[in-house]
Amino acid sequence: MEGLLATIAERGRALLDLDLGRPSESRDPRQLAEALLSGQGEASGTALARELLDAYQAMDQAAKIDFLELLAGSFGPDATRLDAAIAAYRDDPSEITASALHSAAEPRRQELIRRLNLAPGGTTALVAIRKFLLDHLKTHPQLAPLDSDFHHLLSSWFNRGFLVMRRIDWNTPAAVLEKIIRYEAVHAIDDWNDLRRRLDPPDRRCYGFFHPALVDEPLIFVEVALSRGIPEAIAPILAVERPHLAAETADTAVFYSISNCQVGLRGVSFGNFLIKQVVEELHRDLPHIETFVTLSPAPGFLPWLKAEAETGHALSTAERAAVETAGEPGWQDDPQRADEIRRCLLPLAARYFLHAKSRGNPADPVARFHLGNGARLERINWLADRSDKGLRQAAGLMVNYLYAIPDIEKNHEAYATRHEVVAAPRVAKLLKSRSSRT
Amino acid sequence: MEGLLATIAERGRALLDLDLGRPSESRDPRQLAEALLSGQGEASGTALARELLDAYQAMDQAAKIDFLELLAGSFGPDATRLDAAIAAYRDDPSEITASALHSAAEPRRQELIRRLNLAPGGTTALVAIRKFLLDHLKTHPQLAPLDSDFHHLLSSWFNRGFLVMRRIDWNTPAAVLEKIIRYEAVHAIDDWNDLRRRLDPPDRRCYGFFHPALVDEPLIFVEVALSRGIPEAIAPILAVERPHLAAETADTAVFYSISNCQVGLRGVSFGNFLIKQVVEELHRDLPHIETFVTLSPAPGFLPWLKAEAETGHALSTAERAAVETAGEPGWQDDPQRADEIRRCLLPLAARYFLHAKSRGNPADPVARFHLGNGARLERINWLADRSDKGLRQAAGLMVNYLYAIPDIEKNHEAYATRHEVVAAPRVAKLLKSRSSRT
Amino acid sequence: MEGLLATIAERGRALLDLDLGRPSESRDPRQLAEALLSGQGEASGTALARELLDAYQAMDQAAKIDFLELLAGSFGPDATRLDAAIAAYRDDPSEITASALHSAAEPRRQELIRRLNLAPGGTTALVAIRKFLLDHLKTHPQLAPLDSDFHHLLSSWFNRGFLVMRRIDWNTPAAVLEKIIRYEAVHAIDDWNDLRRRLDPPDRRCYGFFHPALVDEPLIFVEVALSRGIPEAIAPILAVERPHLAAETADTAVFYSISNCQVGLRGVSFGNFLIKQVVEELHRDLPHIETFVTLSPAPGFLPWLKAEAETGHALSTAERAAVETAGEPGWQDDPQRADEIRRCLLPLAARYFLHAKSRGNPADPVARFHLGNGARLERINWLADRSDKGLRQAAGLMVNYLYAIPDIEKNHEAYATRHEVVAAPRVAKLLKSRSSRT
Amino acid sequence: MEGLLATIAERGRALLDLDLGRPSESRDPRQLAEALLSGQGEASGTALARELLDAYQAMDQAAKIDFLELLAGSFGPDATRLDAAIAAYRDDPSEITASALHSAAEPRRQELIRRLNLAPGGTTALVAIRKFLLDHLKTHPQLAPLDSDFHHLLSSWFNRGFLVMRRIDWNTPAAVLEKIIRYEAVHAIDDWNDLRRRLDPPDRRCYGFFHPALVDEPLIFVEVALSRGIPEAIAPILAVERPHLAAETADTAVFYSISNCQVGLRGVSFGNFLIKQVVEELHRDLPHIETFVTLSPAPGFLPWLKAEAETGHALSTAERAAVETAGEPGWQDDPQRADEIRRCLLPLAARYFLHAKSRGNPADPVARFHLGNGARLERINWLADRSDKGLRQAAGLMVNYLYAIPDIEKNHEAYATRHEVVAAPRVAKLLKSRSSRT
Repeated sequence: MEGLLATIAERGRALLDLDLGRPSESRDPRQLAEALLSGQGEASGTALARELLDAYQAMDQAAKIDFLELLAGSFGPDATRLDAAIAAYRDDPSEITASALHSAAEPRRQELIRRLNLAPGGTTALVAIRKFLLDHLKTHPQLAPLDSDFHHLLSSWFNRGFLVMRRIDWNTPAAVLEKIIRYEAVHAIDDWNDLRRRLDPPDRRCYGFFHPALVDEPLIFVEVALSRGIPEAIAPILAVERPHLAAETADTAVFYSISNCQVGLRGVSFGNFLIKQVVEELHRDLPHIETFVTLSPAPGFLPWLKAEAETGHALSTAERAAVETAGEPGWQDDPQRADEIRRCLLPLAARYFLHAKSRGNPADPVARFHLGNGARLERINWLADRSDKGLRQAAGLMVNYLYAIPDIEKNHEAYATRHEVVAAPRVAKLLKSRSSRT
Repeated sequence: MEGLLATIAERGRALLDLDLGRPSESRDPRQLAEALLSGQGEASGTALARELLDAYQAMDQAAKIDFLELLAGSFGPDATRLDAAIAAYRDDPSEITASALHSAAEPRRQELIRRLNLAPGGTTALVAIRKFLLDHLKTHPQLAPLDSDFHHLLSSWFNRGFLVMRRIDWNTPAAVLEKIIRYEAVHAIDDWNDLRRRLDPPDRRCYGFFHPALVDEPLIFVEVALSRGIPEAIAPILAVERPHLAAETADTAVFYSISNCQVGLRGVSFGNFLIKQVVEELHRDLPHIETFVTLSPAPGFLPWLKAEAETGHALSTAERAAVETAGEPGWQDDPQRADEIRRCLLPLAARYFLHAKSRGNPADPVARFHLGNGARLERINWLADRSDKGLRQAAGLMVNYLYAIPDIEKNHEAYATRHEVVAAPRVAKLLKSRSSRT
Repeated sequence: MEGLLATIAERGRALLDLDLGRPSESRDPRQLAEALLSGQGEASGTALARELLDAYQAMDQAAKIDFLELLAGSFGPDATRLDAAIAAYRDDPSEITASALHSAAEPRRQELIRRLNLAPGGTTALVAIRKFLLDHLKTHPQLAPLDSDFHHLLSSWFNRGFLVMRRIDWNTPAAVLEKIIRYEAVHAIDDWNDLRRRLDPPDRRCYGFFHPALVDEPLIFVEVALSRGIPEAIAPILAVERPHLAAETADTAVFYSISNCQVGLRGVSFGNFLIKQVVEELHRDLPHIETFVTLSPAPGFLPWLKAEAETGHALSTAERAAVETAGEPGWQDDPQRADEIRRCLLPLAARYFLHAKSRGNPADPVARFHLGNGARLERINWLADRSDKGLRQAAGLMVNYLYAIPDIEKNHEAYATRHEVVAAPRVAKLLKSRSSRT
Repeated sequence: MEGLLATIAERGRALLDLDLGRPSESRDPRQLAEALLSGQGEASGTALARELLDAYQAMDQAAKIDFLELLAGSFGPDATRLDAAIAAYRDDPSEITASALHSAAEPRRQELIRRLNLAPGGTTALVAIRKFLLDHLKTHPQLAPLDSDFHHLLSSWFNRGFLVMRRIDWNTPAAVLEKIIRYEAVHAIDDWNDLRRRLDPPDRRCYGFFHPALVDEPLIFVEVALSRGIPEAIAPILAVERPHLAAETADTAVFYSISNCQVGLRGVSFGNFLIKQVVEELHRDLPHIETFVTLSPAPGFLPWLKAEAETGHALSTAERAAVETAGEPGWQDDPQRADEIRRCLLPLAARYFLHAKSRGNPADPVARFHLGNGARLERINWLADRSDKGLRQAAGLMVNYLYAIPDIEKNHEAYATRHEVVAAPRVAKLLKSRSSRT
């Protein structure tokens, strides 16, 4: 087969009803992979790549895993060539021998992945394979080297320099919008009416990154509410009926939801780039906006609290009681109970954000993301998210992270080099309120 | 500095006339490169990348070479880590240790290049650096490892799967069209009128590959003339005044010029993909077209002939005389002399195309390209290009390579595996005409 | 006020806090209309037009009617000038005096409407005014001359030559798609999922006409199902779950819904142009499609039948009984009753389509439209639409009108000149089945 | 023939080689026109319109004139119907009878022109017919009623509300740009390099109006130079080599060339709308620009001066001598002579602009245009255009008209109602300098 022409030839044959005496049965995937890698690939590469991807997609789950394990186990570097390169490097360590060694050590898998990308729709198919890989990595750890190759290549291909930021609004094609509904990961979008409420009003914005090879597929998107002042709760933002604000009269941009769309791109980060470019865009379009802030969930708070409660000494008796109550349904509607819980949990929340660590970094994943981007922990909001999910994750608590343009670099460096959690004084004060009370 | 926000901050400072106590003098490029590579890169990567690219562009030639030599010589892999990875691999050779070895052997230059691509316009700047590198590689061979890194990354980034084919016509923006004038490498385009004659008439087509990160920059383009029958000379195709053909009445598509545009992408091949996609496109749009053929120069013919003439025994006396005459101006206008030369040179041309080799492959670079793509050497045309360049390179001779859809794969394999030059019988016959005459 | 600059000036004043000593209270609409019409209009036309449209939109219903009556009653031609032009024409009837008379007779309203169109969004506003006019024309007949002016100008502006046909599919902006949901007039679209089922599958098409001055507003659209054979019922086409057909394997294109969107453009017809252009488009894209046919409602059938039943002698007793039963709910699910009704009603349907007239033309409005376009009455389908609406309008009966390319002109002429209803023989046969039975 | 389907049918016949027994000879244009106008037009309108336009385009000049005279002379209103409408109106003058009279007086030509617009490319063809009409109107005054119909309809169709302003720059398709070269009417564009100098530098802008039905055809365009201060001469603006200004540092926008493109749209004015929208656009994009001014020719100055010189008493002897010298070549390079001429001619220029009238308005057509738009005569520049054309028209003199946003309306009203020429004091002073000297 010879590349894009294959299709034409095929069609031609069908039309002319010719029998070219050619077995049409599908070839063995391993043979296809070898053929694609062989030097003969140039002329027939595109068609071979398509054939192999089609063969893969037709496999059942077990066959897919077998095939990927084959790649992970048998498409590594050429051992002889690698040994020779090692010898040459040890004999005379230089940039040239090191370069040759790097080249000799490259698994043949990487070139195979690059050649699979020749096929029309190749990038989409490869991202889907990576997703499948990740889904089975825990149960099939021998796939790890292949996943590492995918991660390496996808990181290079989805480099920020190749991404395009686009505004997503009510003029965006429905084919993209339905994906926004599907991919929204923070505050689920109920239906098209809900979607419209998030995109169309004058005080709403949504931006996403797209890659030219993934048509109509957002990689990540962020939803923004324009407001006067920093919001303390999510419900007014998502309300079905609410007064709209003219964009020019807003002084604050609130990033209230940020969702990654492509599981297959896990480990390739673009969230920080997106937030910063959106800040830049809004700053230029709406110069009256002075505050850029998030309204973020704290997904690890209640689990952490429960773990704390289980280790005998960490919490006071009152606190333990509060944690227990916060795990039961309905307390938020009982002002007295809610107040008790608030008094116990807010200081603990400050401790969670300022001191709880996971491998040296903040225990909360959302905090890690925004602090790592140079934001500062601005405010902890009590009962800011009364949805089931919000209560279950964090007793309804939400956090504002502030992106203050002149401080971003400084904050980032404090976090990156000294693991410092940059927070507004009021958060530390909250912490002290506990000390003084227990 | 902190990424895209830098610009905003900068502007803000300028407006507010604040002195942030920050030295604005430019930083040392080496330090910039190290900072960009350091783990602190995330937040400030984009701005650092831009700063380093700006610093580079402001350098004079000598400083550029110094800087690139620095990268080539001092941004290789970490030797300690590499030694450990070698030891681990030798201790227990496995896909996992091999993968780790490949990773440890990666020169830091590659990550640096990837991070430079974060900057707006980064890809364009990197392609320009590669061009500079290639211009100085011969005189500065120590740059080779860096060039190898560039080649590796650019090959991956400009993978066929990321290219977009676009038709180029009289509705194309002038910013692209002026580059067609500039980059045309085979038959120079005199001016915008000449350009229009190649794009606008109903029997002309032009297609190019574009990469989304290189705005308005074609990577390669091919000019096509639609005709009835296979043309024997270039002049009627380029003529200022000529009858136009309705596209629907053509039976042949002639690829009469194919030009690579980006020196900085040398070694990244897309010519074969372009020709095949154009064949597919034309086949679909204009089903009456049955023949896809080139009208190509033979740039190495006369130089090869002169070299042959100098080795005593290779040519007959008459042939040597013909070669000598063909090097003088004006013979082509003297029918008798031209005829003598033709009789001597045509058989030699057949020998040149069928037997002259350079490292096992055809000596002629254009022949190598088309034969490698699966075309067949269809016809050698005498006095087909009477321009100075055509006479100087090949005594005016041009070649038709035929892309016959059903044979492309077979031809390619014959060439790729058995170094076979697939040619029409009439070419071999031409060869024999010499044997019989000398 | 002076055109587009008004806004700037306004803004400038606001910014600079200048008091230009200018009353900002809104001017009287009549004065605005006179100012807009006066020779001074050139420089300030755009702003005056905007001001007048804004003033109108701010009025309540009664004020709007007053204002429109003012236009209808007091913005006619200049009587003196008209009398003079009449005199001149009668004195010397010629093309020149006739032309001058036409000019003198033009109501000033027409120029006013043209000048209102200068405003940004003017066309949209004018179409909305026309809609309001039509809504109140019956109760306010004195508005008729103004409506006649609107109709005259809108017909000219929405001339087919200015319309653009666009395909509407799942890549169309949501802002347009929500209007498809809203404007669908034949088979209501339940929600976005229903919409997607009509646009996205490979065997569905939708096309609309758009006017450049009405952004995101379809004027009319037609929904098409590709099928094998002519369908006999609507339910399989609208089914939630149904097998999809590859477009290339279809032999029939079914126009199953056509909806006008702009009430304000009533009397400006583009339906016939749309159907014909869609036929042309599909014919080119999908050459295997040989049959172009509608599946249409018969909205006047049951009302006509009831009227017939009331005039004593027109129907037989059995027929009268059938008509009565057909007006009751549930008969369609009782095979025996349904069969009886079918035997009575099908021949009457043939009579309805072939002979029932309204002012010399077929009584059925859908029949008038398609026959007028040159289609032929191909088949009457029994119980083809079991929806409440379908049963209520036509006892569930639907009609196929066939657009046979070679016959369209002939059919149209037969209809237009001889009021002939071109029908397939089977329809006439159906008619006879009644005669033979009664 | 039956509309858009005609093409399909035609093609079908050709393919199937069917003889439909139909005479293919072309029909008589008059018959075509009558058929197009007849009530049968609906189904076949598009094809008939195309057929008639094709027939017209195939005519030679004499036949075209005959055909247009036929329209002008025989496609007026129906005399009987018109007489009845006149009678009805005189009997009972009302809005309704007036409206009916207007309708009855409409020449059938107008409906014919509207129907011709149904054809694909109809608008373009109609604008071309109008151009032809205008070219022959003087020699064939009987065409006047037809021209009046064209003017009426084109004014309505090219209403500002239907025009789209687009920036024209180096990213504009070449198909549009070549028309900019062709249509430039003030300072000829030499070639594509000259064009690029006017579009591409950061301190140059160009905007045009386009109509959706005239693809790639600008209606009017204006070239703008951004500068610091008001320029006194054209040469520095058009210079091949000149320093570029960053757009943000400019304080003045200079409209140095405005060209109408479509002769066939004569009498439909959009220049004033264009200038105002460009002012608005620049004001928004480049808020630092404070001055909007033209650098305009004075095409009528020298002809007026010569006419003055011929009427004995109007000029002094010195002035008459100066006028004579100014008509000879080369004086501008002789400082002494130039100075003498300047002293005589500048005051006369002030008189020309302030007092010379043609039918009550300024004699200079460019002055009429800008003053009518609300600009003020700001400055007369001596030897501002040393080109042959500039010297021949106005002894090299050019004029700045100032568009001062807050004054535009006031200026316009002064001009429109009181025929007042609003001018800077320095111009009146110039005038006095003459009085004091003679």
